[in-house]
Amino acid sequence: MISLAREPYPSRNLREPLLARRREPVVWSCGTAPEGLPEGALASYEKNGYFVLPKVFTDSQVRMMQREMQRLLDKYCGSHDATVIREPGSDAVRSLFDLPTMSPMFQHLACHPRLLAFAQHVLDSEVYLHQSRLNFKPGLTGKEFFWHSDFETWHMEDGMPAMRALSCSVLLTDNDEYNGPLLVIPGSHKTYVGCVGETPEDNYKSSLMSQTVGTPSTEALTLLTDQAGGLASVKGPAGTVVFFDSNLLHGSAGNISPYPRANVFMVYNSMENQLGAPLHGLNPRPEHIARRSLIQPLHTP
Amino acid sequence: MISLAREPYPSRNLREPLLARRREPVVWSCGTAPEGLPEGALASYEKNGYFVLPKVFTDSQVRMMQREMQRLLDKYCGSHDATVIREPGSDAVRSLFDLPTMSPMFQHLACHPRLLAFAQHVLDSEVYLHQSRLNFKPGLTGKEFFWHSDFETWHMEDGMPAMRALSCSVLLTDNDEYNGPLLVIPGSHKTYVGCVGETPEDNYKSSLMSQTVGTPSTEALTLLTDQAGGLASVKGPAGTVVFFDSNLLHGSAGNISPYPRANVFMVYNSMENQLGAPLHGLNPRPEHIARRSLIQPLHTP
Repeated sequence: MISLAREPYPSRNLREPLLARRREPVVWSCGTAPEGLPEGALASYEKNGYFVLPKVFTDSQVRMMQREMQRLLDKYCGSHDATVIREPGSDAVRSLFDLPTMSPMFQHLACHPRLLAFAQHVLDSEVYLHQSRLNFKPGLTGKEFFWHSDFETWHMEDGMPAMRALSCSVLLTDNDEYNGPLLVIPGSHKTYVGCVGETPEDNYKSSLMSQTVGTPSTEALTLLTDQAGGLASVKGPAGTVVFFDSNLLHGSAGNISPYPRANVFMVYNSMENQLGAPLHGLNPRPEHIARRSLIQPLHTP
Repeated sequence: MISLAREPYPSRNLREPLLARRREPVVWSCGTAPEGLPEGALASYEKNGYFVLPKVFTDSQVRMMQREMQRLLDKYCGSHDATVIREPGSDAVRSLFDLPTMSPMFQHLACHPRLLAFAQHVLDSEVYLHQSRLNFKPGLTGKEFFWHSDFETWHMEDGMPAMRALSCSVLLTDNDEYNGPLLVIPGSHKTYVGCVGETPEDNYKSSLMSQTVGTPSTEALTLLTDQAGGLASVKGPAGTVVFFDSNLLHGSAGNISPYPRANVFMVYNSMENQLGAPLHGLNPRPEHIARRSLIQPLHTP
């Protein structure tokens, strides 16, 4: 059992689920919001734990990214590379990890001025890419992502010290109520949910297909959803961008529509929040899942 | 291979998926619509293959049915009765079959004047209950129902001769975009989709948990969804009623919300459309899944 005095965010080896108040701010900077953000964007992000920015990319930019996505899917569909995660029970590609090393276009995307400015402002520092992936949820066969806080995993399995990271999802296809859009529990980022259940060695090998460890209890999910007055979903046309806090509880249902739901997912972490040793003596996860070496702050081109 | 001349709606033993035009009318009666239906209801049902009737039941009637549902769930949760279907990979109740024999309240429900009048008008005859069940999709663990036409199964496995049946779903909880509502491909009831894949003996024992035989091909689902201009979902508060054609392609995603989605599901079949022998020499399914004996037309109390 971890001592609460020493470990503010314990998980996995708990006898009972734990709810704890978040210690860090959500928006770290007190300065003026970056240019081009709608009025109230940061207050909404602080309160709800996520913010949706429509029309960041034009139709022709979206088409370029879709073509690049298809090129990567074609290239890696038969690959046994560790960066390729399959759907459970199928050969369909679920995720491609470490996008920037695969694709100059997606490397460029991570440095997009509006995305980077948002991340730098919210985290009040220079930032780097902790993780990046293409999530490709194929039509009819794409399975769910169960509810989780990214921070819980990153804290336990990657040794990320604090809630000073955020995720940015760029929608490459329209996301609607039918194809398994991002679902969130608004406001849940202000509560840390410690989970029951030991972490198996190399947990990521199965958890990236279907997460069963580090998932909140039914009671915690019900309580936080009740408090939020219900769930919310992030829907929008391709070209929309969603930012969400590292500790926001999120998930998504399977894709029962015939059309794919594809998003780029990039995690900006503060340069002040680099990874330490994973908890519970776990081995560090591979570099393509949690970047440790050659950390460089991102800059606009 | 079945001869198309003899068998208008072949399936299961096909070498390739088949799309065929529906032979029967959707709305069989040409007479005046039953009282209390909104203007255009039958035209909409004819065109789209489903119709939603809000506020059929009051809040207090809904609460009575919810209590009865809970009584049945409590009674049957540990039961090994064949009428109790579990969620795949779990002990949670997915469906309870043959509701009227379990519960006088739900027997009474099947004879509700507005429900019965709709069924009798659309099928232009006296009707009986071919099948009835409580679908209880528990929060967080309720799994999907994959796309299917009920008629395809009833024709193959129950020997139902013609498309002269309809389903009626009474919402016992609010159905929203998060808890796995009924999804439909509008207009798909006008096309019969023959499926590839032999039917195993006693297929219902697994298909009621997770259907894999009698499911349309990816190409058929994509084509019909394209033609429809997209999917539609049936959402509404508890007390809403949905009617849908026996051949409408429908399904539903898993329930990733913490709240259950419970509906009563009743199939009205025309007295002129009683079951014959199942196709391909299959054994008839049990009476609690497909009623054959003691068929009585339903009458309002």
